[in-house]
Amino acid sequence: MATFPRFIIPPINQSNTDTLRHKIDEKTKPRGALGQLETLALQIGCIQNSLTPQLHQPTLIVFAGDHGISAENVSPYPQSVTYQMVLNFLAGGAAINVFAKQHQLDLQIVDAGVNYTFNTPSKLINAKIAYGTKNFLYEPAMTFQQCHLAIEQGATIVRQQHIQRCNMIGFGEMGIANTASASVLMHLLTNIPLIDCVGRGTGLNDAGLARKYNVLQKAIATQQMVSNNPLQILATFGGFEIAMLVGAYCQAAACGMVILVDGFIATVALLVAIKQYPFLLNYCIFSHCSHEKGHRLLLEYLHVDPLLQLNMRLGEGSGAAIAYPLLQSAVLFLNEMASFTEAKVSNLI
Amino acid sequence: MATFPRFIIPPINQSNTDTLRHKIDEKTKPRGALGQLETLALQIGCIQNSLTPQLHQPTLIVFAGDHGISAENVSPYPQSVTYQMVLNFLAGGAAINVFAKQHQLDLQIVDAGVNYTFNTPSKLINAKIAYGTKNFLYEPAMTFQQCHLAIEQGATIVRQQHIQRCNMIGFGEMGIANTASASVLMHLLTNIPLIDCVGRGTGLNDAGLARKYNVLQKAIATQQMVSNNPLQILATFGGFEIAMLVGAYCQAAACGMVILVDGFIATVALLVAIKQYPFLLNYCIFSHCSHEKGHRLLLEYLHVDPLLQLNMRLGEGSGAAIAYPLLQSAVLFLNEMASFTEAKVSNLI
Repeated sequence: MATFPRFIIPPINQSNTDTLRHKIDEKTKPRGALGQLETLALQIGCIQNSLTPQLHQPTLIVFAGDHGISAENVSPYPQSVTYQMVLNFLAGGAAINVFAKQHQLDLQIVDAGVNYTFNTPSKLINAKIAYGTKNFLYEPAMTFQQCHLAIEQGATIVRQQHIQRCNMIGFGEMGIANTASASVLMHLLTNIPLIDCVGRGTGLNDAGLARKYNVLQKAIATQQMVSNNPLQILATFGGFEIAMLVGAYCQAAACGMVILVDGFIATVALLVAIKQYPFLLNYCIFSHCSHEKGHRLLLEYLHVDPLLQLNMRLGEGSGAAIAYPLLQSAVLFLNEMASFTEAKVSNLI
Repeated sequence: MATFPRFIIPPINQSNTDTLRHKIDEKTKPRGALGQLETLALQIGCIQNSLTPQLHQPTLIVFAGDHGISAENVSPYPQSVTYQMVLNFLAGGAAINVFAKQHQLDLQIVDAGVNYTFNTPSKLINAKIAYGTKNFLYEPAMTFQQCHLAIEQGATIVRQQHIQRCNMIGFGEMGIANTASASVLMHLLTNIPLIDCVGRGTGLNDAGLARKYNVLQKAIATQQMVSNNPLQILATFGGFEIAMLVGAYCQAAACGMVILVDGFIATVALLVAIKQYPFLLNYCIFSHCSHEKGHRLLLEYLHVDPLLQLNMRLGEGSGAAIAYPLLQSAVLFLNEMASFTEAKVSNLI
């Protein structure tokens, strides 16, 4: 049966909120003048239950997987681009490599289920569940067993990072056709009309977008979901990289880490996890609102404010990477700015 | 008479636009998927007339000055906070110190006209025009001569940075009551109603905001501007730090530098300069839309898109500082990402 793997995710400790707020207000600046950076400092302080939070070993993990639904031409790129991009990640040539290097983020690449046999085991984390999912237009994308295994694998990989003192983690994804999968998950888990959840992905034209929508509508009709069980929905329409993201989020929150959420697919995976573990949301910082159609609606559904809105739509964790310095800024101003008293600056008249 | 100091600011060279666009499109990502980072890469490449732009010696200059209008209680903070914050900058305790250090930006502090005698000449650039402006409720804030001198001083300080190979520069400001000054400048130079240009500054309550608006309305009636000459408006209602910013912008563009524009006051100073030298706009990157009321309208008036919208309203160049890594990201992806050919990744079907 479709039972979700068990994680213990407590609400974040709010006992320091007032003390943190006071510390922020005593810094040499008008109250609230650092805007969302103040909200961030407060949140990170609460997650770490500390007045002097620190970001250790900041890490990005990119999960890659292939999708059976890509056979329906729901992406303008061929499926082979998934493995080719994984090789690009390993060679250091992709956007996420550039941004992770820029901000000294440890970057890990995971084969969650790519339709390719890689010969570079040293740099790639091999967590392959299968050579891509099944085509959910005709059959469930994966079995419950595969779905469970993928969630467990995502969790294991995060646990490994936690042991190495990482306390700030972001997740990215790569998988041709995975916006198709994510759109269906969003629709079924939020009841937002499918048409509002389906976007152009990597760049479909109008005809391609219409085809994608029709394929997904037909798939939903065929699979006849009777429950709103998140695990069942995930197994039927998800991807291995998405399921692994679900487990990764749960484990990161269970470890008390600060979680940096990337774009549309990454947020949909979080939605699946939150349906099961609502307290998870408080550990999450939303890096950006992407240009992919459903993302803004999904962020609104979750009642969260993204940090950046730069019309990006790349995935790979690229939004998380470029938002990371804002988390650093929040922690640094909290720890390093002088107070009115320390700096002998007059406060409000 | 009110003539503007002369600068030679040519339009930026657009001859490489197509080649740059092609280079960006060949990177291993869907076309346009890096959103505003792509726009930035294109703009920086055009400013530098290079397919491989570089940011050298990135610098932030904070200009500080006092305002006679502060006697009318248009700010909730006493005037003494201006010099106290300058001392805080020099001691390294302010937000801008923290963010500049975080991003390895060279930080320079300028006394443009603070009502205080500083005894720390080694770290402070002394460009003091006077011990604060006059109260423009009763008389012009400064003479034409002072205004000219301030513009020239701002230009000289930037020229000095250019000689030291700096090619990316941002400007901040500090001056109790300078949103009052900036609101009048914005109103007179854009014809946007004064009420839409006046905001809460460092945190006025409703009564304070009403008082500020009334004071400014009265001042405008008293001074009876008959022309829309930007220099005359600047001299009558401006501040020494604002006039120095005007000269700094002009010189930076004349030197072909990439200019990072901070918040409300910094954007108003730019508006003054642009009224005289319209091509200046193309050298400018708008770091953020601040929470100060007039800023969004002003950015719309200029038809520009800010990078960040984090509800910040601190000044000091703080928005410019935290936006800087996005400029770095733009340059880095352009220079370091692999192309489809280099990475052997399939392009569009």
